[in-house]
Amino acid sequence: MSKIEIGTRVSPYMMPVAIVGSIVNDRPNFMTVAWYNRVGGTVNTWLVAIGRKQYTLEGIREHRTFSLNIPHVDLVTETDYCGIKSGRNVDKSKLFDVFYGKLKSAPMIQDCPLCIEFKVKDILEPETNVLVLGDVVAAYTEERYLTDGKLDPSKLKPFVFSQPDNRYWAIGEPIADAFRIGKQLE
Amino acid sequence: MSKIEIGTRVSPYMMPVAIVGSIVNDRPNFMTVAWYNRVGGTVNTWLVAIGRKQYTLEGIREHRTFSLNIPHVDLVTETDYCGIKSGRNVDKSKLFDVFYGKLKSAPMIQDCPLCIEFKVKDILEPETNVLVLGDVVAAYTEERYLTDGKLDPSKLKPFVFSQPDNRYWAIGEPIADAFRIGKQLE
Repeated sequence: MSKIEIGTRVSPYMMPVAIVGSIVNDRPNFMTVAWYNRVGGTVNTWLVAIGRKQYTLEGIREHRTFSLNIPHVDLVTETDYCGIKSGRNVDKSKLFDVFYGKLKSAPMIQDCPLCIEFKVKDILEPETNVLVLGDVVAAYTEERYLTDGKLDPSKLKPFVFSQPDNRYWAIGEPIADAFRIGKQLE
Repeated sequence: MSKIEIGTRVSPYMMPVAIVGSIVNDRPNFMTVAWYNRVGGTVNTWLVAIGRKQYTLEGIREHRTFSLNIPHVDLVTETDYCGIKSGRNVDKSKLFDVFYGKLKSAPMIQDCPLCIEFKVKDILEPETNVLVLGDVVAAYTEERYLTDGKLDPSKLKPFVFSQPDNRYWAIGEPIADAFRIGKQLE
């Protein structure tokens, strides 16, 4: 079928959803992000693109730490709220039960099935959102999200985000094993 | 329930899957990536993290252009193949029907429901994979992937990737409208 041009306001399908935890003005704050991913394998480095006026960025610049918390589908309302409301205007510190790991300035969310604390490696500022690079310091989950000792996405039940329609989607079924099904074409 | 530490080899849930198109040594080449996302909104800028020895990177450095092609679930085998095999060792130029848009060095894949061509904005090299920043030049789809004139993820049928279990997953049902459901907590 023939291709049609659709303008430039497109996004990846689908984007992962996480809640950034930081300490801003001595209080835990939480902001939802979907523009993030891994960027390094040898050291496990992730990158989060954050608007330069975001309140969260003030805390990350001060403490050089943050957390990313992957929410379960049951937390979709709280997750969306953390993307709508700025910590500059509302106190989000009581929205979740908070815990800490090895870092004392990276608040994590008890109700999230996967919580990861990061040390800032670098903060880059090209003409985009600010690019915060963080190295994974430690990751936390619960027994109920594991199968044979390993994280099981079908128990963790994350959700993903699509733009420009602005919807959250559940994950469906596994369709193939990576680095394996492609060998059929060799 | 109590949290347990699970080591540092964690990844986002879920990662988007795309196939990078580039011209390397005068031939279209295709490499699968999952470590990419948007990083800018005012200008629509995306970032792709590419290993510094990847063949694709040679083409991107030379031509300062590339494409990202979002595959349909029916292309999972070809997509995985493009992640297993390097263009240095196999010729992937005949794997897909290729088309071009406004740029003459950003080959796109006819069978992918969403194809986007990029001009390189910057190539950053912190101590991670190489971070290629690209601005969207144009995006292409087909009428059959639209509903009311807009891209419809339930027709596009993208898939996502999980690590460390290395599986591809279909998308499930939409669970909520973003920037709306959170207002219940106001």
